[in-house]
Amino acid sequence: MIENVVIIGAGNLATQLAQAFQENGIQISQIYSRTAESASELAGKVGIGFTNDLSQLITNADLYVIAVNDSAIRPILENLQLEENRLIVHTAGSVPMSILDGFTNNYGVFYPLQTFSKTRKVDFQTIPICIEANHPSNLMKLQELAGKLSRSVHQINTDERKTLHLAAVIANNFVNHFYTLGAEILQDKKLNFDLLKPLIIETAKKIETLHPVDAQTGPAKRNDSEIIQAQLKMLHDRPELQKIYSFVTENIFQVHQKHKHDLL
Amino acid sequence: MIENVVIIGAGNLATQLAQAFQENGIQISQIYSRTAESASELAGKVGIGFTNDLSQLITNADLYVIAVNDSAIRPILENLQLEENRLIVHTAGSVPMSILDGFTNNYGVFYPLQTFSKTRKVDFQTIPICIEANHPSNLMKLQELAGKLSRSVHQINTDERKTLHLAAVIANNFVNHFYTLGAEILQDKKLNFDLLKPLIIETAKKIETLHPVDAQTGPAKRNDSEIIQAQLKMLHDRPELQKIYSFVTENIFQVHQKHKHDLL
Repeated sequence: MIENVVIIGAGNLATQLAQAFQENGIQISQIYSRTAESASELAGKVGIGFTNDLSQLITNADLYVIAVNDSAIRPILENLQLEENRLIVHTAGSVPMSILDGFTNNYGVFYPLQTFSKTRKVDFQTIPICIEANHPSNLMKLQELAGKLSRSVHQINTDERKTLHLAAVIANNFVNHFYTLGAEILQDKKLNFDLLKPLIIETAKKIETLHPVDAQTGPAKRNDSEIIQAQLKMLHDRPELQKIYSFVTENIFQVHQKHKHDLL
Repeated sequence: MIENVVIIGAGNLATQLAQAFQENGIQISQIYSRTAESASELAGKVGIGFTNDLSQLITNADLYVIAVNDSAIRPILENLQLEENRLIVHTAGSVPMSILDGFTNNYGVFYPLQTFSKTRKVDFQTIPICIEANHPSNLMKLQELAGKLSRSVHQINTDERKTLHLAAVIANNFVNHFYTLGAEILQDKKLNFDLLKPLIIETAKKIETLHPVDAQTGPAKRNDSEIIQAQLKMLHDRPELQKIYSFVTENIFQVHQKHKHDLL
């Protein structure tokens, strides 16, 4: 059983994860971050020790959670000096589990599918945690650990996790960018972004009960060329946005033609 | 004061609006829809009379609300036979108020900025209602009426409303389409769309407290070309989606470079 954990990283995910572990009775033994400032900030929050020196890491924790940028994972692994075959996981959507191969005999992935900020508290109970491990006994350990944090634990292999990450980029990063574009369009005309917020929230909530393909409305789906042309014209001073508007509009129409056809 | 209303239309917006009026003590006198079936369905819901014949419309209601497709507004206006100078409004984001000019001396726009379905109940209290009228006395009437439904009533002119509608298309229709694309990507690999739902909800909720430009995360913002290239490759069998992925990714990066620069 995993009773104590070392967190490697002090960014958004590391911060939320450390707090969630602690609130669910899993002891955080130490925080590591390359920059002493972030490490100390997070360590202060959870009231435990930190280091910015990998050689000072506790060597016999039950679990090491690497929650850093994808490109920092390998350099960290290469510099870890732990007791043999400690259990190590990374938390990255697009990095294969096999990156851990050769550094320990016990490893896996612990990927919470959510967007995290340092300050915004999230309810881990509903966050899907995707786990993968190199051995059934490690999988069991991660399953048990994840189950303490969340009601939604899933065995997901490296390929599936990459697909999830791609879908997450589209449904989170891209979606958020369209919020930004909406906000900019309003700002240009001195209109308050608050006016859009109820619409944004309702659009998201709809998919809890309705498949998004059935929730789709608007000029693109109807192929309402009068509105589409008028709106393209309104974007005349933003050629990149105009291009995106065209492509997305065309794609909405195509996907819905196909959907209608599939229903026949 | 507006005490009774005729609703022209029986679609998503007409349905929600009729129910909201009634729940707030504004009498619906009649429902019109071109198709008797929709008219009767909605009339049944709110327990009042309906017609599918414009010549059978009550001629002296306090207000006529035209809640139909943009292209159906003018034909309806041309066939209305009401007592002189009844107050008429339309509910369309992209249609100028002036479309009503010549059909009555009292007119305006009543545009609730939200996405509506027939069955999904929405809380009108928080929905921004954008009103415009041809005369201060009509504006006052609409202001009072809207105030009974919502705490968020705004005087918005035709140009501003067009901008709002464009922003709404982007933050609702486009966003919802990206939910659809995310769902499709998962479905292709037999992964459950439910896994994405907590992320989608949290992404939307974030903007209640954080400007979306500050909430942005992910490979595009970081210009993480390794992930971007890998994800583009995963989309090799969906060239349109690949194109959209490229453009949106590029645009995220540009907008954030500009944003960083503006902060300096």
